[in-house]
Amino acid sequence: MKIDAGMQAAINEMKKGLAEGGIPIGSALVRDGQVVAAGHNKRVQDGDPITHAEIDCLRNAGRPGAGGFRDATLYSTLMPCYLCSGAAVQFGIKKVVVGESRNFPGAPEFMRSHGIEVIDLDLPECVEIMGRFVREQSALWNEDIGV
Amino acid sequence: MKIDAGMQAAINEMKKGLAEGGIPIGSALVRDGQVVAAGHNKRVQDGDPITHAEIDCLRNAGRPGAGGFRDATLYSTLMPCYLCSGAAVQFGIKKVVVGESRNFPGAPEFMRSHGIEVIDLDLPECVEIMGRFVREQSALWNEDIGV
Repeated sequence: MKIDAGMQAAINEMKKGLAEGGIPIGSALVRDGQVVAAGHNKRVQDGDPITHAEIDCLRNAGRPGAGGFRDATLYSTLMPCYLCSGAAVQFGIKKVVVGESRNFPGAPEFMRSHGIEVIDLDLPECVEIMGRFVREQSALWNEDIGV
Repeated sequence: MKIDAGMQAAINEMKKGLAEGGIPIGSALVRDGQVVAAGHNKRVQDGDPITHAEIDCLRNAGRPGAGGFRDATLYSTLMPCYLCSGAAVQFGIKKVVVGESRNFPGAPEFMRSHGIEVIDLDLPECVEIMGRFVREQSALWNEDIGV
């Protein structure tokens, strides 16, 4: 499996989050083949339940101007939850590429029902890092997914 | 129409946003009859496309701990878009009360399909302030809704 620049940026952000003691989920936004923004989950770091990886990434992307993020591809190391899937739908993103969905099913059908192409790369590195975190820090993780 | 404390807090936030030159949408979170957080759209103020009113409010609420925002009611002066509806679904919010949906239809059916009770108060004050903004600043508003 060749990992492209967008997924590599997302994985780098995942590792950054892990090193900070946070939830290891990373995200990147790619436009015209260029990584234009990246981010990672900052709930632990900022005490902020909203700053999931994709939200951090889209915030870092800044205001896209008219047309929104329509031509961009959103990458995430983990299948987006409803919050982040809702962001993708709302901002007109057409393609979402994820590292894995074994550790969290997310909301791919919701995104697909709104015309978003969702690609799950099922990358062993993403499965392994997130899986270990979910096992070792289950209370922290469960808070993030609202259970 | 009696306006309760939650909606009053949301309306106050809407007016704060308008006074700051921002998009006039406000939100509040109520738990056990108390307003525990409030916020308003800050896209213009912070150059941040993600900080819709409900997102700002939930961020201000901080980490809810296990159980999420399950017992809370989310108020917004305008029917939540897919981003903010996704946040409500993800965080297990059971009730959403909105000021109006004339100026933006939002995603009530998506929320209802996930068991959220959605109440639209159709308040003239909310319709009027947002309606004027949409008419006078249509480019700015359209950017917010991703069109």
